[in-house]
Amino acid sequence: MDTMNDIRPIIWNEENKELILIDQRKLPAKLEYFTCKTYKDVALAIKDMVVRGAPAIGVSAAYGMALAELENSSTDFIKKAYDELKLTRPTAVNLFWALDKCMDSHKNGISLLDEAKRIHEEDVELCKKIGKLGQTLFEDGDVILTHCNAGALATSAYGTALSVIRFARYAGKNISVISDETRPRLQGAKLTCFELNYENIPVTAISDNTAGFLMKQGKVDKIIVGADRILADYHVFNKIGTYSLAILAKYHNIPFYVAAPYSTFDFENSVGNIEIEQRSDEEVTHIDGVRIVAEGVPVINYAFDCTPPELITAIITEDKIIYPNK
Amino acid sequence: MDTMNDIRPIIWNEENKELILIDQRKLPAKLEYFTCKTYKDVALAIKDMVVRGAPAIGVSAAYGMALAELENSSTDFIKKAYDELKLTRPTAVNLFWALDKCMDSHKNGISLLDEAKRIHEEDVELCKKIGKLGQTLFEDGDVILTHCNAGALATSAYGTALSVIRFARYAGKNISVISDETRPRLQGAKLTCFELNYENIPVTAISDNTAGFLMKQGKVDKIIVGADRILADYHVFNKIGTYSLAILAKYHNIPFYVAAPYSTFDFENSVGNIEIEQRSDEEVTHIDGVRIVAEGVPVINYAFDCTPPELITAIITEDKIIYPNK
Repeated sequence: MDTMNDIRPIIWNEENKELILIDQRKLPAKLEYFTCKTYKDVALAIKDMVVRGAPAIGVSAAYGMALAELENSSTDFIKKAYDELKLTRPTAVNLFWALDKCMDSHKNGISLLDEAKRIHEEDVELCKKIGKLGQTLFEDGDVILTHCNAGALATSAYGTALSVIRFARYAGKNISVISDETRPRLQGAKLTCFELNYENIPVTAISDNTAGFLMKQGKVDKIIVGADRILADYHVFNKIGTYSLAILAKYHNIPFYVAAPYSTFDFENSVGNIEIEQRSDEEVTHIDGVRIVAEGVPVINYAFDCTPPELITAIITEDKIIYPNK
Repeated sequence: MDTMNDIRPIIWNEENKELILIDQRKLPAKLEYFTCKTYKDVALAIKDMVVRGAPAIGVSAAYGMALAELENSSTDFIKKAYDELKLTRPTAVNLFWALDKCMDSHKNGISLLDEAKRIHEEDVELCKKIGKLGQTLFEDGDVILTHCNAGALATSAYGTALSVIRFARYAGKNISVISDETRPRLQGAKLTCFELNYENIPVTAISDNTAGFLMKQGKVDKIIVGADRILADYHVFNKIGTYSLAILAKYHNIPFYVAAPYSTFDFENSVGNIEIEQRSDEEVTHIDGVRIVAEGVPVINYAFDCTPPELITAIITEDKIIYPNK
């Protein structure tokens, strides 16, 4: 049951030697696929956000390298593909990691298709492990609030936060979900609601403003989110709004969980030297091309925020559950 | 200075005997006016949300009654106008209050145009008093966060929460504002940003998710919001998201103010017997006609929430500042 009918944003078609991606730009209106026959198609798909989410981008890039090798296995050509794929997104650590791994394999005479499949399967296994371990924290009947999309659509399968929800359901627990819409980019509304609804996992959509009042009414049992980066002292960087949610959870005595693979840990930096990325004003001033804020009004648009360890009940990784305050 | 160039959503044109309203459906893209020559025009304007905000609706309805009397002063005709105007919006207390007041005046032989002008001017004076009293709580250099639109556009002039900001500026204090966009209906983005920017009061737009993290960074000095209803024990019902903001304010030791006229107080009810209005799913599932949540996903869409007195620093009314916790 745990691999039936679940959403897979990345599919390798062995017969036609092509990469098939869910076209996430079309969600939730249409479930359409985008087929990549060359590495250039993959580069376009990453650049145009057909595929998004750091792990999913890494896996797709590896298949891009494999497609390049199938087209022309000369080192010059492989290097050209590497360079082009590297330029698709500026800050996705998994992208660079996957490309470097493929370059090394090429130098060592390992098939890049085998390497891509291995990276792909490893990512599936990682998410599965997070789900299986994390689901032990959830009880039958729990209503779980989540933010943004830490789901299958951001990884190869299952997701991180949403993997925990899936595996709790696979374990027979009757879990339902409340999804923050997650302004400004609406990944909760557009992606989380889509993928859970698609798999018949009960999900309810709310505006971000509604979360606190639902907690007050006792309608939220637990909260789980993903992470973009976790520091050695357990400060968690994640989608803007996570910090507010963690404070609301604390105020209402609701457990607040973070689910992320070990690769999310950053042991180099401390809170003080991480700059919070600010994204374009248009994400706030416009929705689907329609202006909602008067011209000339400035915007503050942080892409993520930082939640301190004292607000986090536990961090779920693939091989252990960490309690920052114990 | 305090009445120059400020936004007035309701203007009586004495020469042409017509009511001129800012067409709020067009904001922030265009500042257009909607002219009402008959009471039916006014009914349409209220129904279609050309004018919104409980006090502004009440004043407009009074002018609607005045236009009816100018057209035909028979009691039958006035009663017909009364009935039609009453059906325009189901829950606006000020609407019924203003209509009843006009009906009484008609019975007592008082000119309805005089009555409408009196109601209009009273509302202006009320907002002015709230602003003048409340501004004493603000200091030069304060950055004030607000939610939704408790502004001139919701009243006859100045607003309630935004009146306090305006009069602090009139008093020479260099105040700037951060406006939550206020999903789902985006009154902060569409109206508050527009009206403050129009009057050259510095305002910055943020997604609702950004408020907490700005507080953490010390970028918010005070918070002020309006109110839909205030109970005798100082529980405040206001736009959804107000409760979350109040918790975030408490966590960061930021003063949290509510500004509202005495007419907002409800001495009849207690928290337990007030039902929170749920509005249509479409406010969450669609933005400007575009679907953002997959079909079949249910929605919880509370129009407002309830903030308990322990989270409120002070309530500013037209004649006193109330400290619920002192």
